[in-house]
Amino acid sequence: MKKPMLAAAMVAGFMTALPAAAQFAKPEDAIKYRQSAMSLQNTHLGWIGAMVNGRVPFDAKAIADNAELLAVLTKLPFAAFVDGTDKGTTRAKPEIWAEKDKFMAAATKMQDEVGKLNAAAKGGNADQIKSAYGAVGQACKACHDNYQKPL
Amino acid sequence: MKKPMLAAAMVAGFMTALPAAAQFAKPEDAIKYRQSAMSLQNTHLGWIGAMVNGRVPFDAKAIADNAELLAVLTKLPFAAFVDGTDKGTTRAKPEIWAEKDKFMAAATKMQDEVGKLNAAAKGGNADQIKSAYGAVGQACKACHDNYQKPL
Repeated sequence: MKKPMLAAAMVAGFMTALPAAAQFAKPEDAIKYRQSAMSLQNTHLGWIGAMVNGRVPFDAKAIADNAELLAVLTKLPFAAFVDGTDKGTTRAKPEIWAEKDKFMAAATKMQDEVGKLNAAAKGGNADQIKSAYGAVGQACKACHDNYQKPL
Repeated sequence: MKKPMLAAAMVAGFMTALPAAAQFAKPEDAIKYRQSAMSLQNTHLGWIGAMVNGRVPFDAKAIADNAELLAVLTKLPFAAFVDGTDKGTTRAKPEIWAEKDKFMAAATKMQDEVGKLNAAAKGGNADQIKSAYGAVGQACKACHDNYQKPL
């Protein structure tokens, strides 16, 4: 592979501004990028979950900060699902590329739910936060069920 | 290790809001978290570098977007250098914990330089961006030289 791969600037938000710059030199760079972003997402959503589920004390400010960060992080992974990155150290199923529109719709659905969680978190109402948190979890799970190989 | 480790909320900015929530269940979770954040930093700084160095066309908007994201990402790793995470799959040197104040000062220096890059990027002046980009790279290197084991 001689030329860097151009990351498809197909997602709403941040990455759309980076068509020329968002390049991965090697397929494994793109895989590592999306895995890193998803790992951070998972951690911050987990911290919100710990508060929503009462494992640590409910802290509206901490939830809002995590949700705000999540709104940024969840924009990152999807431009890294470039062609040719379905092989290697990845649990990405080939269906991602076979039905890219459907995959991206599922990603957008998740981003929308994160947007709602972010709004609810800013409001500080525990019931609304809990409900929005559940919807984010459902959106994550729906996409993973369809597009991620089991461990 | 029965109890989750409380991540020290010692860095300026985002993580200070998360003392109760910022917990890692296992040392390897903290290591993975900081490695993920640093990997994303590296990618986005690299994309800025590609434009600064002319490998891809200079695009002030793309640089500003990357710098803005970098300002968020560079706040993340340092709360994950919790005690007990100097072992395992990590290149972190024990000096990080032996001279934590000096390490955190180096981290803060890097964050300050990223703040200047972000300001320069918003201004759009190519010379100022190039200079600020160089200072960020220097700050990264200084900390890695002192605190990261070579490959």
